[in-house]
Amino acid sequence: MSHLLLINCPDERGLVYKITEVLFKHALNISSNGEFVEREFNHFFMRTEFTGDFDREVLLQDLRQALPAGVTIKLTDKRKKDIVLLATKEHHCLSDLLIRHAFQELNARILCVISNHEVLADLTRKFDVPFQYISHEGKSREEHEAEVLGAIQAYNPEFVVLAKYMRILSPEFVAHYSNRLINIHHSFLPAFVGANPYAQAYERGVKIIGATAHFVNEQLDQGPIIAQSIIPVDHTQSAREMAQAGRDVEKIVLAKSLKLVFDEQVFVYRNKTIIF
Amino acid sequence: MSHLLLINCPDERGLVYKITEVLFKHALNISSNGEFVEREFNHFFMRTEFTGDFDREVLLQDLRQALPAGVTIKLTDKRKKDIVLLATKEHHCLSDLLIRHAFQELNARILCVISNHEVLADLTRKFDVPFQYISHEGKSREEHEAEVLGAIQAYNPEFVVLAKYMRILSPEFVAHYSNRLINIHHSFLPAFVGANPYAQAYERGVKIIGATAHFVNEQLDQGPIIAQSIIPVDHTQSAREMAQAGRDVEKIVLAKSLKLVFDEQVFVYRNKTIIF
Amino acid sequence: MSHLLLINCPDERGLVYKITEVLFKHALNISSNGEFVEREFNHFFMRTEFTGDFDREVLLQDLRQALPAGVTIKLTDKRKKDIVLLATKEHHCLSDLLIRHAFQELNARILCVISNHEVLADLTRKFDVPFQYISHEGKSREEHEAEVLGAIQAYNPEFVVLAKYMRILSPEFVAHYSNRLINIHHSFLPAFVGANPYAQAYERGVKIIGATAHFVNEQLDQGPIIAQSIIPVDHTQSAREMAQAGRDVEKIVLAKSLKLVFDEQVFVYRNKTIIF
Amino acid sequence: MSHLLLINCPDERGLVYKITEVLFKHALNISSNGEFVEREFNHFFMRTEFTGDFDREVLLQDLRQALPAGVTIKLTDKRKKDIVLLATKEHHCLSDLLIRHAFQELNARILCVISNHEVLADLTRKFDVPFQYISHEGKSREEHEAEVLGAIQAYNPEFVVLAKYMRILSPEFVAHYSNRLINIHHSFLPAFVGANPYAQAYERGVKIIGATAHFVNEQLDQGPIIAQSIIPVDHTQSAREMAQAGRDVEKIVLAKSLKLVFDEQVFVYRNKTIIF
Repeated sequence: MSHLLLINCPDERGLVYKITEVLFKHALNISSNGEFVEREFNHFFMRTEFTGDFDREVLLQDLRQALPAGVTIKLTDKRKKDIVLLATKEHHCLSDLLIRHAFQELNARILCVISNHEVLADLTRKFDVPFQYISHEGKSREEHEAEVLGAIQAYNPEFVVLAKYMRILSPEFVAHYSNRLINIHHSFLPAFVGANPYAQAYERGVKIIGATAHFVNEQLDQGPIIAQSIIPVDHTQSAREMAQAGRDVEKIVLAKSLKLVFDEQVFVYRNKTIIF
Repeated sequence: MSHLLLINCPDERGLVYKITEVLFKHALNISSNGEFVEREFNHFFMRTEFTGDFDREVLLQDLRQALPAGVTIKLTDKRKKDIVLLATKEHHCLSDLLIRHAFQELNARILCVISNHEVLADLTRKFDVPFQYISHEGKSREEHEAEVLGAIQAYNPEFVVLAKYMRILSPEFVAHYSNRLINIHHSFLPAFVGANPYAQAYERGVKIIGATAHFVNEQLDQGPIIAQSIIPVDHTQSAREMAQAGRDVEKIVLAKSLKLVFDEQVFVYRNKTIIF
Repeated sequence: MSHLLLINCPDERGLVYKITEVLFKHALNISSNGEFVEREFNHFFMRTEFTGDFDREVLLQDLRQALPAGVTIKLTDKRKKDIVLLATKEHHCLSDLLIRHAFQELNARILCVISNHEVLADLTRKFDVPFQYISHEGKSREEHEAEVLGAIQAYNPEFVVLAKYMRILSPEFVAHYSNRLINIHHSFLPAFVGANPYAQAYERGVKIIGATAHFVNEQLDQGPIIAQSIIPVDHTQSAREMAQAGRDVEKIVLAKSLKLVFDEQVFVYRNKTIIF
Repeated sequence: MSHLLLINCPDERGLVYKITEVLFKHALNISSNGEFVEREFNHFFMRTEFTGDFDREVLLQDLRQALPAGVTIKLTDKRKKDIVLLATKEHHCLSDLLIRHAFQELNARILCVISNHEVLADLTRKFDVPFQYISHEGKSREEHEAEVLGAIQAYNPEFVVLAKYMRILSPEFVAHYSNRLINIHHSFLPAFVGANPYAQAYERGVKIIGATAHFVNEQLDQGPIIAQSIIPVDHTQSAREMAQAGRDVEKIVLAKSLKLVFDEQVFVYRNKTIIF
């Protein structure tokens, strides 16, 4: 079983040496190692995969002793993450994740799918995943969001994934899942922020469209980007056809970003991701 | 020798038939044909390559007679276009075009390179292309632009290409070269309009950067897009390194867009391009 | 309802005129038109979408009269095709097609999934598609293939899709479905023909891997290519990881090629495809 | 000034620790670090950029003492490499490298361009680079190659770059420049090994073409791949048009691979490259 050590702290001389010394003295075996020093703010990031037996508390204490104050240490492994999915009416991202989940390819347990519409209930239940329908009809935005939040919290997930959830979430909601809330936006951000990006792309006459998976923060479509991808389009495609073509990009980009996050390959630092 | 017929008009039934009938009766041989009907405004576009001998005036008259009022007919060929290049300090787009020009790969005659700096003079003259240095120092924007416009007009070019010309042109200037002024913007428009797109891309933490070749109109970076391309980037690249990596994309996209335009493959309709 | 006219014949002067004249005289409305003349053998291809009412027999007779002997005329529409899928153990292409089918995005009716293993039975039946298990155990290749062929023929499909079917089909089998049998090969053909392309790609140390959807003919992996796509890989990926990464490309390329074929956008000519 | 340490050896526990300990004790500052363990043969690779003053002999001795027998240590920096280019008639790769060289973007000094034709002499001399014409006419393959080898050896380059040099080199020649001889092959290897890859690609009807930069070894087009890239093509393009479109890919891929090699980012191990 592989273990993962994720460390970040202000950069100083000897950090790699000090960390690997601790691991060596615990007789642990590094199988893969990545470091990066962010130059704008001089911040150090290191992700280490290793094998071997160790006393968790002693190892953490030794690492803290060796490293500067203010260090962030995460000692974890690649076990499956508990997640909840939010969706609305479009199926393509949800379908893709349910299939990967069913075949053990997602590195996550989907605890529940929550939606403000019922159209994806059948699909979800085919795969023996609970589906919770929380209509927004006749409720204020606050009421509906509170209900959704309550439903999510009942599952206590590590990550919440917006698989084409078409309602805007309040900063209060987002604050509950800082760096744990992942969205797929159907454009090549920062182009076409907001609603109807394919209509915007058609209107502008672009020759390439894309999709962006990102952590959600308080500002709409402004959170740290995890993955992006694109496909070429041309003048023969209507906004609707661009949207169709874009779906395959969206689902692949979202799945790719979840793999990175669930495999603990992503650091979030300020408004960016560092990906190993 | 191949001839080219570019026709656009409001759509109606029988247009392809009527156009090809005229060509058939003139005993002309179609070697390639493309049609497109834009559905939002119901507008018809057709581009035909053909061979054979014909009386230009008679052919045009027959076409006009066969087609609805308001038709635009362009009867041309693939001969080389006369162009003027504007540049500032960066060499990569200019170098690439000068090389293609020197080896007869550009389908254009570069009549002159005009720059507000002198650094590219040597490069340009190596390839026996006139270089005109028009400094902006000590001049108002209007004065400088008037001087540049005068210099261009002396060459009477069919197209003006902004090969990394880093000064903003006034709507008055642009109006002289409607659909004949081509710019390469160093971002994937409409992301990162304006100055320093690589710094903006770095700041935003995007995972893909791009370049956009477009016709220039009165609004900055808002004209009809001709070609776009992208490359992946990651957190290890500084804004400067993104800019370096982006240069190869810029030069290839600009060259590609010029090939499309000079080979008469591009219609401009409203704020978009239709490309055959 | 849109109709489709696909015509191919030796090239000669006036073909577009003659075809569109027939359509015009039948008062039919062309909504989209594509022509291509293959220059090596001077062969003409035209695909026309049109609307309007017509007498099928009269229209076909008028077209035949107007066109040279040896013309091939296909008058059809975009209705759903009847198809049978063959699979083995890998689910990703089958899953993707079942999902698209369930949401009416495939332009086909999947009549049955046939497999030489049982592992995909549950998945298939979730989507209310018949699953037929035809084991190859204890049978000669000829016996097994005859059984599979019989099972397919009972459904009388227009197309047979090999969705990661891992057994080689005999030329006799293939001959039953000339230009109607589509395979997804997990490499960028013609690189890595045959078994285990990802192992070959790993061994060779390539920096890009791909997938190829093609019609199957008598020679292994040599049929007309419909669509290809690629993803970058690097030295950190094992053959198994390349295979995992490749799956997303395979499923997208197969779905894309089926869309082209089922929408009647593909001509097969000699060993190539002409795609409109 | 940045220094570079490239180490590879059979993997064992504690290598990162032992290497970084030596660097730490020499008071050197790691600015970037990459490790990789190849799992098939269990081989360890590490590339470290660092700054600081040191005694070269003492540092190397300390590293050798700390590391297992059989280790390969390269202590170098990013200074410009001395190179010789070989070309034939096609200009696009040579042009691109001469331009980058002229603008200090190549990280190499081009000592000479050697060609078996004269057509690129003018281009080369425009950029004040020596051009040596060594015709193969009236000479045996061995005679010509000996002459070329002699000419190269007179310059004592660190790398020899085949910038579209269209003659096959003997294993004897290649042996002189093991892992120092770089070629650009105009296909997506291993597809279309050998002559006329674009003609082969056209014949096969592929939908994507590519280019491959690789080290040359004794077997034609079989050496370690450094970089590859692709562009889509379609049925409308002739073999000649594919070749034209491919040129831009070739020049960009060759330049990219040279950047990687000259910046000491590439290990060659068996028949593959490990790239940091």
